[in-house]
Order: sequence, then C-alpha cells, then structure tokens
Amino acid sequence: MSILDIIKKKRDGGKLTHEEIAFFVAGATKGTIPDYQLSALLMAIYLNGMDIEETSILTLEMAESGDMLDFSDIGTVLDKHSTGGVGDKTTIVVGPILAALGVRTAKMSGRGLGHTGGTVDKLESIPGFRSDLSEEEFKEVVRTVGFSDIGQTKNLAPADKVLYALRDVTGTVENYSLIASSIMSKKLAAGADGIVLDVKCGSGAFMKDYPSAEKLAKVMVDIGNNAGRKTSAFITDMNEPLGRFVGNCLEIIECVEALKGRGEERFIKLVYAIAGEMLNLTGKKDDGMIEKVINDGSALMKFREFIRAHGGDDSFIDDYNRLGKIVIKEEVKFNRAGYLSRCDTEKVGLACMKLGGGREKLSDTIDHSVGIEIKKKLGDFVETDETAFIIYGNDEAKVSEAEELLKGAYEISDTPTPKPDVILGRIIL
Amino acid sequence: MSILDIIKKKRDGGKLTHEEIAFFVAGATKGTIPDYQLSALLMAIYLNGMDIEETSILTLEMAESGDMLDFSDIGTVLDKHSTGGVGDKTTIVVGPILAALGVRTAKMSGRGLGHTGGTVDKLESIPGFRSDLSEEEFKEVVRTVGFSDIGQTKNLAPADKVLYALRDVTGTVENYSLIASSIMSKKLAAGADGIVLDVKCGSGAFMKDYPSAEKLAKVMVDIGNNAGRKTSAFITDMNEPLGRFVGNCLEIIECVEALKGRGEERFIKLVYAIAGEMLNLTGKKDDGMIEKVINDGSALMKFREFIRAHGGDDSFIDDYNRLGKIVIKEEVKFNRAGYLSRCDTEKVGLACMKLGGGREKLSDTIDHSVGIEIKKKLGDFVETDETAFIIYGNDEAKVSEAEELLKGAYEISDTPTPKPDVILGRIIL
Repeated sequence: MSILDIIKKKRDGGKLTHEEIAFFVAGATKGTIPDYQLSALLMAIYLNGMDIEETSILTLEMAESGDMLDFSDIGTVLDKHSTGGVGDKTTIVVGPILAALGVRTAKMSGRGLGHTGGTVDKLESIPGFRSDLSEEEFKEVVRTVGFSDIGQTKNLAPADKVLYALRDVTGTVENYSLIASSIMSKKLAAGADGIVLDVKCGSGAFMKDYPSAEKLAKVMVDIGNNAGRKTSAFITDMNEPLGRFVGNCLEIIECVEALKGRGEERFIKLVYAIAGEMLNLTGKKDDGMIEKVINDGSALMKFREFIRAHGGDDSFIDDYNRLGKIVIKEEVKFNRAGYLSRCDTEKVGLACMKLGGGREKLSDTIDHSVGIEIKKKLGDFVETDETAFIIYGNDEAKVSEAEELLKGAYEISDTPTPKPDVILGRIIL
Repeated sequence: MSILDIIKKKRDGGKLTHEEIAFFVAGATKGTIPDYQLSALLMAIYLNGMDIEETSILTLEMAESGDMLDFSDIGTVLDKHSTGGVGDKTTIVVGPILAALGVRTAKMSGRGLGHTGGTVDKLESIPGFRSDLSEEEFKEVVRTVGFSDIGQTKNLAPADKVLYALRDVTGTVENYSLIASSIMSKKLAAGADGIVLDVKCGSGAFMKDYPSAEKLAKVMVDIGNNAGRKTSAFITDMNEPLGRFVGNCLEIIECVEALKGRGEERFIKLVYAIAGEMLNLTGKKDDGMIEKVINDGSALMKFREFIRAHGGDDSFIDDYNRLGKIVIKEEVKFNRAGYLSRCDTEKVGLACMKLGGGREKLSDTIDHSVGIEIKKKLGDFVETDETAFIIYGNDEAKVSEAEELLKGAYEISDTPTPKPDVILGRIIL
C-alpha cells in the first residue's frame, strides 16, 4: 500500500477503505509517513470530505493508535464532552450529581486555550487538587467516588495529536469529519460505555450557527454509536457566557452554589438536561432524582469526596475566601439604559484571558483567581449607571483591557429582546 | 503576510494576489515555509485551481527565484520545448536549420526519465560532447554558432525544483497551472525572446487526449505572451514513436540523416512546422528556405559547428560506426499479418529504458548505444514473419524483456488503419 495512492484516491474524490485509513493513521503515529504527505492528504480530505463510514473508521483507528482505557471491571461508566465555550462548568456539577445517583462518570478534560476555558484549569483552582492522576488512580476514583476528571494522558490517541498539530498549521481544522474524529477518538480511547455530547453553538463557540452545530453533533453521534458506545448530543446556546461567572475560581464557586441549589437558571437547565440524558443512557429516568440529590446535599457530598480523592482541600466549600485573593474589583457600567440584545461571547472569553485567567498559547501559566461576574444576561434591562459586570483582577492595565473588551462585546437596544433558550436541539440515534 | 492565510484563501477557492504568490514562492525557495504547508497549499491549488493571471504570476515568480539569463547583448534568441515523448529528437534538427538561416536558438534541455528520452542524453552519445557548458560558454556558442543546447543550470528556477519535488510525492503533479508554470518558469528564466512549444498528445505523452493537450498548450502560450515572450504551440501526435528510431545514438544518426535530406516523413513534417513557426516569431517566412539549407548542406555544417563548439567529435557524421558498438541485433516479428492499428507508445519507451537506454530514476546511468528501429509505423501492413522492429542491445535478458514489451505495445488489425497526422493543432495568441 502506498500513501501516494491514498492521497490520489482522496484527491479524486474516492472513498478510502479501512486498510487505507489504518495505513495512514499508523504512519502518522509512527512517523513513517512524512508531514508533507499527511498534510496533502488532510487538504484532500478537507476539500473532498469523508462519508460517515470513513469518518467512523478514522476515529476508531485514531483511538486505537494509543492506550485504550477499559472500565469493564468496574461496570458501566459514562463520559460527557463539551465542544468548548465561555463559562461552561457543566461537568463539575453533573459529575457529582450522577455519582450521588450511583452512575459513574470518567472524564478526561482539556485545558483552556484562547477564549475558551478548560475544566482541568477550573478544578486546579482548588488548593491541592491533582488532575494528573495515574490511570490506576483515575480508575480507583471512578470506582470508589463515582466521578473523576483528569487531564488527558500522554498516550491518548497519539495519531490525533500528530494530525491535529498539522491541521492547525495547514488550514485543515474546520472540517466536520476531521473535527468529529479528533474529538471522538479521544472519547473512544477514554473507555466510557456511553457519551453525552454538548455541542456549543453561537458567538462564543467554534460552531457559529445551528446548522453547523447540528451537522457536527450528528456526525459525532453516528461515530459513537457505530463504535458501540451509546451516544447522544445536545446543541446548546453559546451566544452569551453560561451562568453568572467566567474565570476559574469564580466558576468553581458557582458550581458549589449550584450544588447547594442556588445555580443560575439557564445553567441549571443545562445541568439537568445533560445529567438526565446521561441517566437515560444507563436506562434510568430522572423522575425528580436530580433535584433530590441537590436538595439533600448528597451531590455536594460527592463533590467533596471527588476533591479529596484528587488530593484537594474541600474546606473552601464553607469559606469561598480560601480560593484566592483578588486585588481589584471593577464594576462595569454602560452609561446608557436599554436591553442587552447581543453578545460577542468570544470577546468575553478573551477579556478573561487578558485578565490572566486563560492562555494565548498552551505553555502560558494562568491566574486562577481572576474573572468576570455577569450580573446582566441577554434580554435583561440595564439602567444607566447600573452595574452590568464586575471584573475581578490583579493588574490595573489588564483590568482596563478586559473592561474595553467587555463593553465592546455587548449591544444595547431600546426594544425588549427575548432571552435565548439554552437547549437548542437534541440529537439521538 | 501569513502562509496559513494564503492556504485558507486558496482552500476556500479564493484568487491569490501577486504579493501572496511571491510570498510563498520566496518561502519555498529560501526554505522558510515548511514542506507540510507548501504541500497543503499545492493540494488546495490542485483542487481549486488557479486562473491564468495567478498562473502567469506564479510562473514569473518561479522564474525569478533563481538566475535569469539575458541574451540582449546578442540579439533575438529563440527557444523550443517539447513536453516529452518517445523518439522526439526534433530540437537536434531544428536548431542547426535555424542557425543556418541566421536565427539563434538557446536551449536548456532535460534528461530522460521513465519512458521519455531527453535531448541532453541523446547529444551526449556524441564522443566528447559536453552539455555542461558554463553560462558564458553557452552564450558564446549561441552567439557564434547560432545554436546551443545544454543541461539545466543548477540555479535555474530553484523554486520549481522545490515545488516539483513536493508535487511528485503528494499527488499534485497533474494540474494545468502547476504543469504549465513548472515548464514555463524554466523557459522564462532561460532568457529567450520567443518560444515554440510542442505539446505531445497520445499514448506516449503526459497528455493522453487532445482536449488536455490543447488546454495545457493554451495556458502555456498565455503565460509566455503575458511575460512578454512571443509564444506559440503545436499539439502533435505521440500515439506512436516519432521517426524511425528510439535510443540515444540511433536518434543522433536519424538526425544526421534528416539533415542530409533523408528524414522520415512525419518527423520531417514536424521539423518543418516547428522551424517554420520559429521563423514566424522572428518575423521571417519559410518560403522554401528550410528545404534549401538542408539540401545545400549548410544545416548539417551548422550541426558540425555545434558539436565542435561543445567539445564533441563530429567524425561520426561520416562513419556512424564510430558512435558505439552493439552486440545483439534482434529482429522482431508478429507471426501474423495485418495492419498496425494501435501503439501503446509508453511501452515502446519503456522497452528502450529496459535495454539500458533510459532511466528508472534520475541517478541511473544509461547505455547510449542501445535502442529500437521502428521499421513499421501505424497504418503499415506487416506480413507474417516480416521484420517490424529491430532491437539493438547488449544484454540477452534485457533484449528479451524489451521484445516482450514491444510486441505487447502494438495491436494488429485486419482492416486498413489510416496513418495518424503528426500535427494535430496549433495555438497562437
């Protein structure tokens, strides 16, 4: 088999066989196929596409290019994935809820980059919290606590690492098959029996419009189910930040508040939907159980267990001041009255990044304490001189920069604007 | 300017600006743009195309990536290019004819690869002949003799060398803009004021059918004229070898025969057409002058001058035996009577290569003495046991292999088959 023949076949719009896909994925992993041939193939795939069968095979081959986690000795284990947005801390609330309901979640999360935050970064706001558990420790926490969330292990889908690095520098990122296989290969390798996907859609998401988000969701649901994992997806709104806080410590506090029954309305709606769907995958129904484990404190108790199992100090749950100090608290006002009618969510994420709460490049270090409180949401009326946001920062210049971005991110209208739904669609097989 | 933006623009079907094309050609030449980005761009160009303006700019930028020869101190100088075929020795006859008519030709030729021969290889059959003249020597021969033909100098269109090497291994060779710019960049850099192109078409050519050959010819004629060089093209038949001989020494002898007025009919027709078109470019007309310089021996005299100027021994012109010895002379018969109706010309070229007269890879050395005499042409009737071809070789096994290929290359039919025209079309601006 020759990589040149494979490139030419895809270049001419042909359908690649399992053997051909396996050949180039293995070559990418082992480094036996040069980058320049892989990138020519990626561009041919980008422009001529892959059908769902090819995409499913590509995903499986990438998953199997490295370690495949196996939870069969523990029982049914679920996973959950968000395509990334601003203020998305859903996993941190859903995991403990499900654990309290006896449903196990084993998740590997990414770190934040650019305007999007990362669950691992948020969790690392907690003093002592370790997201670098070994595979054995990870499985043990999943088994005993019912929820663990760690950073991706080094040998998880190495083929994806090679291909993604090339796609990033060759203009071949934005292709449904390539995006879907990149995400799903890591999900398949991470070993869960069922997966609920949260495909973000809007100004703060990779997918800007509903049709794009729906298409990506469908491809990923197909891949998951083709690979024998029960998979379903929500398409959810990212036309404004999720919840009331953006920033690592602040979002952890917001999660605790949610687990205490004081979550923001739209955020809680999403938590319930995703937790409910994950219950569905195990054959269970919500029937008020989610509300119950929040109200009776058992979900919060699971969160404490989870933190302790990861070496973290859970005392901040009773005293939020223990999470880090903030020097500057800047109230942001619009100086005109009106309805918040539009949000460029990416700018809100970038404002948090500029404060030091995110990364421009993966090697940057972050300041967990900084962030933004969103006091006014889309559709809310804001009075002249009413505080719409509070910026929490440690550096005057950065706070000014963030304020500029934040003010530029929103539009104010004289006419009432409806509050956007958080759940836009659901894709099941 | 960023190469990633350029890749994305072409990926999305955009038209590249002069600055963008200059940027990536310079990056390819200097090695500042990595191969994997160039190959992604080449695949995007392959699939989304370039218009004639982009193609002309690409060609000029590639030409200017290295040395640009300048004959302005000598006067008008022409060039001639064939896209390559089997038995194509036209340059070697046309050059001396034009020189005898006072029209200068300065040509850089390639070497043979695969089934196609190379003019430089043919000329190097002549004892002592040097095709590696310096630029100064080259210009001096053009000035004094009126015709010189050398191998490509090292720094001729280096960007093309980089891009062609990548195209070869990434499935991005067969694209009109890329083929045309590769050929024409070297023509423009070689400095001629006018260029006549011979685009081969058929079973022994890169372009298998007339529409493809015509399209390539039109693109190249446009590029040449856009660059201020008078350029025209012929589309000529390569559905059988050109002339009566394939093989380096044998073709040199055939050229001498043609210059002595004994050329094969179709070959001579092509020589007259190309020489006539080159005269046209200088504003002259044929008016029987070509025939005259053949009949009065002045063209042959120019050929002698050309050989001597390149350090060669021209005594073989009076005694062909001086060109090399042949051990085996194998007559090939078909063992059935009929009309030669079809020829897979590539196989004839490969037969010569297998004899040792060509190269599988550029580093191979060749045996100049071997080759094939084509005694029967398409449309000829061949009797049972009549000799159709003679194989000249130095190794029994290779001769057998060549015979096998040769027999498999032809079809014999009971019904008369018309002899194909050699000139299929002419493209002028």
